[in-house]
This record gives sequence, structure tokens and C-alpha cells, in this order.
Amino acid sequence: MALALYDLEGRDGRRMSPFCWRTKYALAHKGLTAEDRPVGFGEIKTIGDGSHKTVPVLEHDGQFIGDSWQIAIHLDQNFQDTPPLFPSLDALHYAQFVERWLFTQVFTAMFPAMVKQVFEHCREEDKAYVRESREKQLGGMTLEQADKRGKEGLGAMSVALGPLRAKLMDTPYLNGNEAGYADYVAASTFMWARAVYPNKLFAPKEPVADWFKRILEMHGSLGRSTPGYDIAA
Amino acid sequence: MALALYDLEGRDGRRMSPFCWRTKYALAHKGLTAEDRPVGFGEIKTIGDGSHKTVPVLEHDGQFIGDSWQIAIHLDQNFQDTPPLFPSLDALHYAQFVERWLFTQVFTAMFPAMVKQVFEHCREEDKAYVRESREKQLGGMTLEQADKRGKEGLGAMSVALGPLRAKLMDTPYLNGNEAGYADYVAASTFMWARAVYPNKLFAPKEPVADWFKRILEMHGSLGRSTPGYDIAA
Repeated sequence: MALALYDLEGRDGRRMSPFCWRTKYALAHKGLTAEDRPVGFGEIKTIGDGSHKTVPVLEHDGQFIGDSWQIAIHLDQNFQDTPPLFPSLDALHYAQFVERWLFTQVFTAMFPAMVKQVFEHCREEDKAYVRESREKQLGGMTLEQADKRGKEGLGAMSVALGPLRAKLMDTPYLNGNEAGYADYVAASTFMWARAVYPNKLFAPKEPVADWFKRILEMHGSLGRSTPGYDIAA
Repeated sequence: MALALYDLEGRDGRRMSPFCWRTKYALAHKGLTAEDRPVGFGEIKTIGDGSHKTVPVLEHDGQFIGDSWQIAIHLDQNFQDTPPLFPSLDALHYAQFVERWLFTQVFTAMFPAMVKQVFEHCREEDKAYVRESREKQLGGMTLEQADKRGKEGLGAMSVALGPLRAKLMDTPYLNGNEAGYADYVAASTFMWARAVYPNKLFAPKEPVADWFKRILEMHGSLGRSTPGYDIAA
């Protein structure tokens, strides 16, 4: 079997895509290795038959699979002798609910503080695309205007992290005593921040920061070993 | 086997405790019936050996079990030939995360709009206790002051419902195609509202309202058949 992963890359080897991070943690969880195929935003259209608009894309024996959820399910179906990402359907629904919580509450709050930094840390040839697409996402606000609202957004992020913080008071990981896909989905959001955000993201003594540090170290320091900033106070 | 459930009761037979609702849905999910033992706030101390401070309390063959989580786990352990509440550990962690989300985001937003209504709908003999304990919870605000902030809180609730709303766009229930304990935990929050809140709680076309209506109807209209208001537009 041959696996290769197309992973979004910025300048200086920075890996910022939270969706790609989910897949890298998924592969590591299952003890699988994939050839690293870093691509800039503009190179995504060159993957496989050219139909992919986003990464990650996993190439598995000549088949190209996009979308981090589809890849996770594909990995469980095709590598049944490795630790499952979804040992039950509830594990899948749980991870999906965590994603919906991240999208509707956490990611939106972080976005203003991150978006100009994503621009700063992408490759030169991707900058025009990133500015245009992100300013459209911001409803016409410029990256610089969004950046000014960053602090306020991070205050809202801290409130939005309530459920994760509270769950971590009872169990070391969202999935209990061991990290699972719900943890990887949540932590990947902060891997995105770690790649580009040059300041502290978490308040001192934030329990979420301790959990994130544990995830940085696991699977042979998969997270920690990549270029990034020290966002966890 | 003999089961009896001590369930918080207000005036006119209203059942307002979200924690008791979880247990009633848990019993129904497993096809179990328990003798109904309604108690007012002031009667909780008369249950069993007098050590219980909260309901639900389940009496099972002379043993008294408090705390809705403990009861749910007890039911799965003791009635293994009935549908499990937690078919996997992930189902438990999922339901716990949903509770943490409700506590930190949703319940807090709803509280100002509900608290005076809880007072209005409890038994006469419980009113002094409810006013005092709830005003302490409100940090010294009166029930009437909290009530004035109710509308604002319900606006925040609608934002906080984002993850539930988004998950329900993909699957009919939090637990997938069938309701599970994560659904019961979430829906019980709205059963609390239904017992006391005499207005619409949800905006028109709110997907959460449709899901709640389905839960009201299930298990022989367990929810719908109890006294309450039509909170779902």
C-alpha cells in the first residue's frame, strides 16, 4: 500500500490547514505513514485529476480522496487492523458535534485575529488569492481591519471554549483517557493558530492549553516538530 | 424488580427539573417503568435516608441512587437486556460534552428568562426557598430584575444553539438516526422551559424546534403528555 498526503504549506514550511492537521493526526493515530506532498493554495488544482478545491487530499494506491471526514472514514474502512478513529458511530457523531461547535462558536471568534497572520505566513505567490478570498469571507472588511478586532475576538473565543474547558476537568481528553478524533478535530483548530499567530493565544492557567500541549507531544511530537509559535502560555 | 422515581413537581403537576427529565427519558429509552413519586423542593430531604439534596433519585429494590449520570449508568449496568443509553464509552463522553456545552453556553443564556417563571410555577410552600436560592445564584439580582434581561438572554441562547442546529442539518438526532442520551440531555433543558415559560422560546423555522417536537412525541408522547406551554413556534 502507498499513501501520500497533499498538505497545505505556507512560507518556511509552515503547515496551517486545520483540516490537513486532522488527517495527519488520523494517520498517526493509526500508525500509518504517508508521503508528504506539500502544496501552496495555488497548487491544489494540480492534484490528481484537477477536481479538488481543498486539501487534504489523500492518495491511496492511485485513488485520490478529498475531505478530512471522507479520508478518516476511508482509513478506518481500509486499515481495519489499526486503531479505529471511530470505534462506534457515536464517536463519529461526537466528533461531528465538536466540529459544529468549533465552526459556529470558536473558529468565528478566532478568525479576525488569525486572518492577517495567515496572509503573512502564506507563500508569496498565494498572497493575492488569500487576501481576496479572505476579504470576501470577511464581508468586505480588509485583513487590516479584521486584525484590529482580533483581541475582542479572542475574548469571545475564551468564552466559547467553555464546553472543552469543562470536559477537560473530568477527563484528560474529549474522548476520555485517550485522545480520539474529537480531540484531533479540536486541537487542529489550534494547530492552525500555532502555525501563524505570533502571540499567546490562551490565558495563563487555561486548562485547554495543557491539553493542547499534550497533543503537541503525542505521536512522536507530531505537532511540536513542525514550524510554529508558542501560543500556549 | 421495583423502580420508583422521585421527580420534582411544581404547581398543577408541572415537572420542571431538566435532570429529572433526563432520567424519565432514560427509563423510557430502556422500556422501563418506574412508580411516579412527585416531590416539591422542600420534600427532597425526606427521600430515603435524608441525605439527598437534589432530584432525580431512583429507588431500585430499596437502594436509592441520586444524580442523573449515576442513575443512567446504573440503569445500563442493571438492565443489560434493554437498549443501552451508552452503547460505547464515546456515547458517554459525547453526552457529557453536550452537557458542558449546555451549562456553559445555553443554560446560562436562558436562565434570566426562566428563573422568575420557575418561581411562579413552583408550589406555594417552595416559593421562599426558590426566591432565596435563585437570587443567590443570580449574584444578588432579584427575580424581577433577571426577568427584564430575559429577552437579551434568549438572543444569546439562539447564538449558543449553533452547534445543535448545525448537527441537526446532517442527522435527525445528535446521536444520528435515533435519539440517544446526548439528545435527552439537550432536550431536557427545553423540557424545563416548557414546564414554566409561557411564551415562544424558539424563532420561527428554528430547526432545533422541529427536533424538540419529535422528542416530545417519542416514547408515547412522554414529553407532550405532561403540563406545559407551547414553546416551539
